[in-house]
Amino acid sequence: MKKDNNLKQVLDAVDTNLDAYVDRLFDLLRIESISTDPAYAPKCKQAADWLVKDLKSIGFKARSIKTPGHPMVIAHHHKVKGAPTVLFYGHYDVQPVDPLNLWDNPPFEPKIVTCKGGRKQMVGRGTSDDKGQLMTFVEACRTWKAETGNLPINVTILFEGEEESGSPSLIPFLKEYKDELKADIALVCDTGMWDLKTPAISSALRGLVGLEFTIHAASRDLHSGMYGSAARNPIHLLTSILSDMRDANGKITLPGFYDGVPEVPKKILKQWDGLGFSEKAFLGEVGLKVSAGEKGRSVLEMIWSRPTFEVNGIYGGYTGDGFKTVIPAQASAKVSFRLVGTQDPKKINKAFQTFVKERLPKDCKATFHAEGGSGAIQLDYSLPELAKASTALKEEWGKDTALIAMGGSIPVVGLFQRLLKTESLLIGFAQDDDRIHSPNEKYELNSFHKGTRSWARILQALA
Amino acid sequence: MKKDNNLKQVLDAVDTNLDAYVDRLFDLLRIESISTDPAYAPKCKQAADWLVKDLKSIGFKARSIKTPGHPMVIAHHHKVKGAPTVLFYGHYDVQPVDPLNLWDNPPFEPKIVTCKGGRKQMVGRGTSDDKGQLMTFVEACRTWKAETGNLPINVTILFEGEEESGSPSLIPFLKEYKDELKADIALVCDTGMWDLKTPAISSALRGLVGLEFTIHAASRDLHSGMYGSAARNPIHLLTSILSDMRDANGKITLPGFYDGVPEVPKKILKQWDGLGFSEKAFLGEVGLKVSAGEKGRSVLEMIWSRPTFEVNGIYGGYTGDGFKTVIPAQASAKVSFRLVGTQDPKKINKAFQTFVKERLPKDCKATFHAEGGSGAIQLDYSLPELAKASTALKEEWGKDTALIAMGGSIPVVGLFQRLLKTESLLIGFAQDDDRIHSPNEKYELNSFHKGTRSWARILQALA
Repeated sequence: MKKDNNLKQVLDAVDTNLDAYVDRLFDLLRIESISTDPAYAPKCKQAADWLVKDLKSIGFKARSIKTPGHPMVIAHHHKVKGAPTVLFYGHYDVQPVDPLNLWDNPPFEPKIVTCKGGRKQMVGRGTSDDKGQLMTFVEACRTWKAETGNLPINVTILFEGEEESGSPSLIPFLKEYKDELKADIALVCDTGMWDLKTPAISSALRGLVGLEFTIHAASRDLHSGMYGSAARNPIHLLTSILSDMRDANGKITLPGFYDGVPEVPKKILKQWDGLGFSEKAFLGEVGLKVSAGEKGRSVLEMIWSRPTFEVNGIYGGYTGDGFKTVIPAQASAKVSFRLVGTQDPKKINKAFQTFVKERLPKDCKATFHAEGGSGAIQLDYSLPELAKASTALKEEWGKDTALIAMGGSIPVVGLFQRLLKTESLLIGFAQDDDRIHSPNEKYELNSFHKGTRSWARILQALA
Repeated sequence: MKKDNNLKQVLDAVDTNLDAYVDRLFDLLRIESISTDPAYAPKCKQAADWLVKDLKSIGFKARSIKTPGHPMVIAHHHKVKGAPTVLFYGHYDVQPVDPLNLWDNPPFEPKIVTCKGGRKQMVGRGTSDDKGQLMTFVEACRTWKAETGNLPINVTILFEGEEESGSPSLIPFLKEYKDELKADIALVCDTGMWDLKTPAISSALRGLVGLEFTIHAASRDLHSGMYGSAARNPIHLLTSILSDMRDANGKITLPGFYDGVPEVPKKILKQWDGLGFSEKAFLGEVGLKVSAGEKGRSVLEMIWSRPTFEVNGIYGGYTGDGFKTVIPAQASAKVSFRLVGTQDPKKINKAFQTFVKERLPKDCKATFHAEGGSGAIQLDYSLPELAKASTALKEEWGKDTALIAMGGSIPVVGLFQRLLKTESLLIGFAQDDDRIHSPNEKYELNSFHKGTRSWARILQALA
């Protein structure tokens, strides 16, 4: 019963001390740590130093480590012999704030506002992405330490300062510090809840392959009255190739594309069914009614678990006002694939290039420009830490934890897998409407409060 | 024998007086009659007045007639009782001259240059399109009149001043003056020869239907990580629809598209085969090797006698530098059809819109913007005037007259058919490399000289 008593005491302390936690977060939020703009490098360093100081005050061994970009913060609190070690990840850098005129309040002067529904929200750059989120974990540690003199588990913390600018230093850094960062499980706090009341663990992240390609036909633009039909129109080739990429049922026809695409376990599909997701509302919100994509799959299944092929941009010929009867010399498209399971980004990139080239007449050629590629991340649904964290979250929020998937990608999760051999639990308390990367970014005060309580529970659950 | 003697005398006089003809043409070329720019309206009026004065000096009843745009010139010389009447058409307006810095010589200071091959060329705006061409006819009339006191046939002349700016006044003008312009045959001098040595009559002009259309899907741009596959991507619809427009053999699949498309008579196909046209050279000049379009048709057949469907422009989604994983709200294309035979532009426009709409899911829509439409012109190969003019040209040039087709369109020919019930012979002496509409426009001195002689012959041949 000691353990349960400890937890209750910690949770009560979180409730009591919330105002102080908010004040501390606001101190961090006031530091303009915009990582993408070199002018703000001193601010990034200041934010890293602030975190080191704060973690030391809790009892962590913490330090800021120089990189070719902005510093990394590593902190350790390993004082429970035989207990597992968790590696917590967050990032202290933020997105730029322009257009400044769209902010109702200066972005680096955080404040609490009460929104129409009566909920309290912290508004300011970084409240949700990711300073507010990372501080939920720090405050949970602080409270455990203050109330019980220790943490229930061994904790390593890694705070990055370049997440919003492509993480250029992350790979070499992880390689260099991999022994120091080794842990039984990683906790990544940069994702969201299912809704305001339902906690979630993101269990799958799709990978991404991006390509821009151009089809070249004649050596110059031609007049369609002179050359129509006889000369190859690269737009025809482009549209025909892109059209060939899907069959009538929405399946991608690229050979080998579905290699490594797993079916979602029935149990999980059933759980998704129980989330009360409305396809009609999801599509209706953006003016659509009919689900695109593969026939026989639900919208949720498609956006969470299926690979996709999308044309993100297309251009060729005359696109200005009016009309010009031109047969252009070239036409281009930007395409991307979202990957799942063990789909191989390199293989898919290559297969697509072959797919295009095979469809060109011998007097035309295609040039390709890769826009990066990363494989998908799929959490092992049988991980014991997943079950424990799910239960802890359910106890805090009073609702089953949703195991959700994400369309986007969080590269650090793949890097932890590959370089540290460590699986990640993606647990966060953001909401879809937090306006991250946009003016008036906010974080629900309730997310901050119950997020801190959630981590307090999870720290014990994983012990 | 009188007739033949007369012709010989006229032809000799053309040879003798060529320098004077060139001087007169240069006077007309110096008038900056750019029709599309309102600042040059007085120059257009000046060119019309110059022509009226010149035609009067030959003995024509000539006048300049005001229109809402630039004036029309009508002139009559009807002094051969019982003889047929020809209506000659040319235009005195010219294209703008920018970019001025690409001209080797000021565009309105015409001069004769000797090109690398030793040929003499008149260089300046309007030399080929169309002042140099129309003056070949005027000089032929002048010489007949000077040498014999009359013309062999009744001649009406119509000079337009808005051909290069869309001919806005032409239809109402033709309607108002249709009785005065009535003729047995029209002679339109705004086309070219087959090559430097081979005269040609353009016997077919393709029509044109132009359309811009946009496919609208979601109410705003979407993130492909969030909505990929589930939300309809209008670029996929667009590429699929455009791709559907052709089958594997290059045939257009639009229902009813080939209604009214005639097969070229074997005799004409054979004549085309004899022209020595090289597909390899034609395509090779623009860096291509493989003929596109319908299988089993020659390139010449395709560009002269077959209808086409081309995408002239396509755009949608993110087209800037780098990458944005967007699913755009809309995507657009500009398309055009070249029509032949009796293909109906309105029917094809409508069929295409139906074709697009039938392929849209019910939550998407398409909007269309028509860019005008005109039917094809097909000369009746059995016209007696065609045979007579062909023979006259052959006698002048020493080579069989090529009956060629044109990819482009000359609207006046259709209007003569429709409003005046008059068929046209399109006879001109331009070359493909005359750089019309471009800097350093030129006209072969030989085209001017033997063009004048050609008309001298044709005037008699049609009498």
